[in-house]
Amino acid sequence: MTHEFFMQQALKEAQKAYSEGEIPVGAVVVINDRIIARGHNQVERLNDPTAHAEIIALTSAFNFLGAKYLPEGILYVSVEPCLMCAGALYWSKISKIVWGADDEKNGHKRVTGENWPFHPKTEVVKGILKEDCALLMKNFFKDKR
Amino acid sequence: MTHEFFMQQALKEAQKAYSEGEIPVGAVVVINDRIIARGHNQVERLNDPTAHAEIIALTSAFNFLGAKYLPEGILYVSVEPCLMCAGALYWSKISKIVWGADDEKNGHKRVTGENWPFHPKTEVVKGILKEDCALLMKNFFKDKR
Repeated sequence: MTHEFFMQQALKEAQKAYSEGEIPVGAVVVINDRIIARGHNQVERLNDPTAHAEIIALTSAFNFLGAKYLPEGILYVSVEPCLMCAGALYWSKISKIVWGADDEKNGHKRVTGENWPFHPKTEVVKGILKEDCALLMKNFFKDKR
Repeated sequence: MTHEFFMQQALKEAQKAYSEGEIPVGAVVVINDRIIARGHNQVERLNDPTAHAEIIALTSAFNFLGAKYLPEGILYVSVEPCLMCAGALYWSKISKIVWGADDEKNGHKRVTGENWPFHPKTEVVKGILKEDCALLMKNFFKDKR
């Protein structure tokens, strides 16, 4: 399975968020080429600004595995994680994070700069299907105006 | 009511965590001199490394108020928030964060350095009852060894 395949699944989650009036970000957690958890942004529905796609997918993965670390896991997320989600991913000890579009406004890099926010063993891959991921966000905010 | 009074309440939450075998961090959210939410670290119990005192207290406050922002709120927490909790506090737009002990290992400042991770309007006060807050952590890790 390719990064593109799993990012398509994260995009499906993002589209769910879009159709529910949520900022369209979606995530999946993969272990051994299998999706074990999914999440999409639910900030409005839950009235909780911490209910990001990544947090929901991670919590679901911890529950599924009965484990609080994901050293074999890969998180795919359509947009660069924010500072909170970067911090949650640090705690998860996840092996790899794959994101689509960068987020200049709310991405963690705006605050962390050159400092590495993740676990030392975590790898990052970015830019997978980034045009599709960015377009969904762009369309959402265009609709909102 | 003083910062010390509310930090004592956060310390009570931290002691709950201690007695449950959790790293002893506790938090309360205050609006108009009233505690509207409490939280203590529940990472082990919930098998979820995102179940920090601050996140639990914030989510409880959002639920209590039916609002996703806390511009009138003050969060008291016994130990410096980690990167994840700093990011969650950013999203909450909380007016003030008061913490006790610094955390050189896992505090957000290790990663954010001189960059401000919180909402531009958020104020920070630190060092309130810091010896008590730090001693609880020190004793916990001494017991563990």
